[in-house]
Amino acid sequence: MAPPSILARYHADLDAYLRDILTEGSPPLLYRMMRYHLGWEDARGRPTEAAGGKALRPSLCLWACEALGGDPRKSLAAAAALELTHNFSLVHDDIQDADRERRHRPTLWAVWGQGQAINAGDSLLILARLALLRMLDAGLEPAAVVRACRILDGACLSMIEGQCLDLEFEERARVSVEEYLEMIEKKSGALFGAALRLGALTAGAEEALGERFGRAGLLLGTAFQVRDDLLGVWGRRDVTGKPEAADIRRRKKTLPVLYAQSAAPSEDREALAGIYRRQALDDEDVQQVMGVLERAGAYDYCQSMARQRLDEALAELASTAVTPAAFCDLQEVADFLLEREF
Amino acid sequence: MAPPSILARYHADLDAYLRDILTEGSPPLLYRMMRYHLGWEDARGRPTEAAGGKALRPSLCLWACEALGGDPRKSLAAAAALELTHNFSLVHDDIQDADRERRHRPTLWAVWGQGQAINAGDSLLILARLALLRMLDAGLEPAAVVRACRILDGACLSMIEGQCLDLEFEERARVSVEEYLEMIEKKSGALFGAALRLGALTAGAEEALGERFGRAGLLLGTAFQVRDDLLGVWGRRDVTGKPEAADIRRRKKTLPVLYAQSAAPSEDREALAGIYRRQALDDEDVQQVMGVLERAGAYDYCQSMARQRLDEALAELASTAVTPAAFCDLQEVADFLLEREF
Repeated sequence: MAPPSILARYHADLDAYLRDILTEGSPPLLYRMMRYHLGWEDARGRPTEAAGGKALRPSLCLWACEALGGDPRKSLAAAAALELTHNFSLVHDDIQDADRERRHRPTLWAVWGQGQAINAGDSLLILARLALLRMLDAGLEPAAVVRACRILDGACLSMIEGQCLDLEFEERARVSVEEYLEMIEKKSGALFGAALRLGALTAGAEEALGERFGRAGLLLGTAFQVRDDLLGVWGRRDVTGKPEAADIRRRKKTLPVLYAQSAAPSEDREALAGIYRRQALDDEDVQQVMGVLERAGAYDYCQSMARQRLDEALAELASTAVTPAAFCDLQEVADFLLEREF
Repeated sequence: MAPPSILARYHADLDAYLRDILTEGSPPLLYRMMRYHLGWEDARGRPTEAAGGKALRPSLCLWACEALGGDPRKSLAAAAALELTHNFSLVHDDIQDADRERRHRPTLWAVWGQGQAINAGDSLLILARLALLRMLDAGLEPAAVVRACRILDGACLSMIEGQCLDLEFEERARVSVEEYLEMIEKKSGALFGAALRLGALTAGAEEALGERFGRAGLLLGTAFQVRDDLLGVWGRRDVTGKPEAADIRRRKKTLPVLYAQSAAPSEDREALAGIYRRQALDDEDVQQVMGVLERAGAYDYCQSMARQRLDEALAELASTAVTPAAFCDLQEVADFLLEREF
């Protein structure tokens, strides 16, 4: 599954813009931690070829601007702000989840400790805000910049609310599929929504059109997360950079598990509940859970839910002023979100 | 030492404005944690009479606006943003320093764990941004709101940079007084600077006058921190809510210690260095350090440094358009910062 072409299209501009923001700064450690997290340097500050993130959110922002006839360079500030905001959340999530590895490398906190990792996440969040304000230098009106701040900050608040719910769910015995969907709309959907909305805003789109873009983004982000949950169970370690069945091993209540908890035959449901009550799972436990999920058809359930969200997203934008070429780009993104292995 | 009158003057308006921001929200836990931290509720969500913070920064913001003939109600959004930003930093600092108590109550992470405390801090930071954008509703021009965002975000970045330095210093054997002063200008001075600058901005002050207010704020904030360091050594537990000689017990390299490290007789310097190399200090160690600091005159050194900063701050604003009554208010603030016991 090749990555969608919009990622390569905007990569060089976005990368240069982000590096400009993070090249210099004092204390050096703070900026080095951020560059490390973004995959540009190793822990000693030497340049690396480590794979960074996919940069889906900023690319979608730039795409949305161009799809409505705008100049994507005017959206670079917003795109950078989205990528920094996303990375803020990853740095803090890794501390919260005690994850020691991401993208085949030690996580930031695993290298520099929790205290400094909190600082690195905080500064990514603030640098995102400062990046967004650069929209003014790109020629946008102050009123549009203030609207952009509202959109990004609102999405960021949703994201944190979603993360709070996610941690709460880990403590609860029972979580419904509906509660879970509400959580991922906040945790993952909101920032994708902001990405498309900010792109539309920089293209000068009216409020109503911007909101349609926002809804489409929310649906794409939700589908992204559903696929992510699926990869947390069935993803291949060599591709995802995470242990196999990672989410099961950590007894996470992601969609495949929640679905099985509600739809599997009662014998399987009881076995699943029993295993999830244990403190730590061994390989046999994990295999047993995998069996329950497979018999319940959890994989297909997740895929069809993701497909449904993606179809809705495409439908939302089908009858707008989006150019035909741009619509094909979006189709490609949707296909990628449905089939991606990493 | 009575608190300066500006604290009482603005308290009711500020409190109502902040409560309006934090009253409702989902998930309830996230908003409950924030209200707990602000001293409005206990850990179960019942209203309390716990003492919140002093609200120095927002009060100084409202004061600056009024001092220049502005309507302080126009500054409430900025004032709330400052208080939320300050509290974001406290929540994360308490995790980083592993402090289990603040203002005579368990810290947020001690009640809900580090993961959720990170979320609570993050959401205070984002709510601060959203509060600042309310300046638009108070009738300020979008261009002024964007300038305000730059000021607050810039100060917030400085604050995080300062916190990063502070944690770095803990790992280092030697820190100079100059390095320390640079650190507290960032960690504590910058947000006070933003407070005065935002107040001036909402009063419609020119850029150059705003910068003078910013410099005065930076000096006040630095003096505040110097006194804070002093209270960390000589403060009374029943007043500060912290253990006696708390910073010595934790081998913190605050100003009294750094001064003694450079100015004490060589025998005392060696004793101090020896004790600070230990993993944990007992009561006798703490008493010995206290003796070194007292013989070196560290208390007087800190006080005279704070006094100097406060004099400079007053001088910075003496020849501006600040009304005489407002100047008296500021004098009162300076006296409080120099003599406060909590």
